[in-house]
Amino acid sequence: MARTAGSFGEKTEAALREAAVALMARHGYEAVSMRRLAAEIGLQAAALYKYFPTKEDLLFTLLREHMEGLVAAWQAADPGGNDQTRRLAAFVRNHIVFHVERRHSTHVSNMELRSLSPARLTAILKLRSSYEKELRQILREGAANGEFAIDDPGLTAMAIIQMITGVIVWFRPDERLSVEEVAERYLAMTMRLAGARARTEAG
Amino acid sequence: MARTAGSFGEKTEAALREAAVALMARHGYEAVSMRRLAAEIGLQAAALYKYFPTKEDLLFTLLREHMEGLVAAWQAADPGGNDQTRRLAAFVRNHIVFHVERRHSTHVSNMELRSLSPARLTAILKLRSSYEKELRQILREGAANGEFAIDDPGLTAMAIIQMITGVIVWFRPDERLSVEEVAERYLAMTMRLAGARARTEAG
Repeated sequence: MARTAGSFGEKTEAALREAAVALMARHGYEAVSMRRLAAEIGLQAAALYKYFPTKEDLLFTLLREHMEGLVAAWQAADPGGNDQTRRLAAFVRNHIVFHVERRHSTHVSNMELRSLSPARLTAILKLRSSYEKELRQILREGAANGEFAIDDPGLTAMAIIQMITGVIVWFRPDERLSVEEVAERYLAMTMRLAGARARTEAG
Repeated sequence: MARTAGSFGEKTEAALREAAVALMARHGYEAVSMRRLAAEIGLQAAALYKYFPTKEDLLFTLLREHMEGLVAAWQAADPGGNDQTRRLAAFVRNHIVFHVERRHSTHVSNMELRSLSPARLTAILKLRSSYEKELRQILREGAANGEFAIDDPGLTAMAIIQMITGVIVWFRPDERLSVEEVAERYLAMTMRLAGARARTEAG
């Protein structure tokens, strides 16, 4: 976590992040105390408070890093260019793999926005909205150049994001399908939903 | 709530249900005490404990009633018959209207399964699975009679349920669209996703 770099130790940082999202996903943010969290990773509460003066500081850092990580992963995965079908496929694959690998963090990010102060909530929603805008743009441009058949890019973007984020509700690594297979099937459904040309011709 | 009928009073029951799901949706189940809940509706904690000996008894009642209400609403909405496109439309409309009207209750039902004892969790999951099975059956029969083009009815059912439940994340009654309009747009997306015949011919 950026603010603790060089002081907390990378291993402690990773342990803290993992313990925090696991405990908060299990019990809810309000029910998890800083004391309990510190104990979970073998720290004194005082040491934890040194880096995160309030529990909300910690929550905000977790949520911000989650969203920044998602935006960065998408920037790395985005093939760019004018082929919006290709970009949509990259978006769906990246989104599913990212969230399946961060199930607890995703739960906390979806549920605990309610626990942020207004200014911090605004900061996270801004990040989220810039990410969702990428998908809306892909859909809008793909509709404009005839790749997709979409009535309402905004609503379609929300529908796709909720559908593909929903994978974490039921998917577990020991399921009959691998993450990649699940992503391919959700991609096929996304392409249908977007009225993608290839699909329409085939079906 | 069934167990309190005739003793608690209908008004108190309704106030309790509303306060409980609102507080739990806002703060998380673990963070809400029976004392606070009783205070919220102007009861003594002792009076509440009389009807719900533990907080988990209350949670279970809320979750069970939510799922039983959903199943009952679907049974009333299901047109039956062999026209699976018509049944799918009824399913989507009923699901969206039911959940938008019970946003807090839906949040609690989705998040607080983690707080149930194993036996009660099993009971709720059984109800949920019987509901999801209805959608799988519609998709499977529709695929068999050529109404839909679907690779994987199980995965498609999960995708549709997550997509249409996701409406509660962003939809508010003061949005630019009414619940019914949102339901119609999600229905159009569902039909595409299911490769429904009418859609394919049109698009």
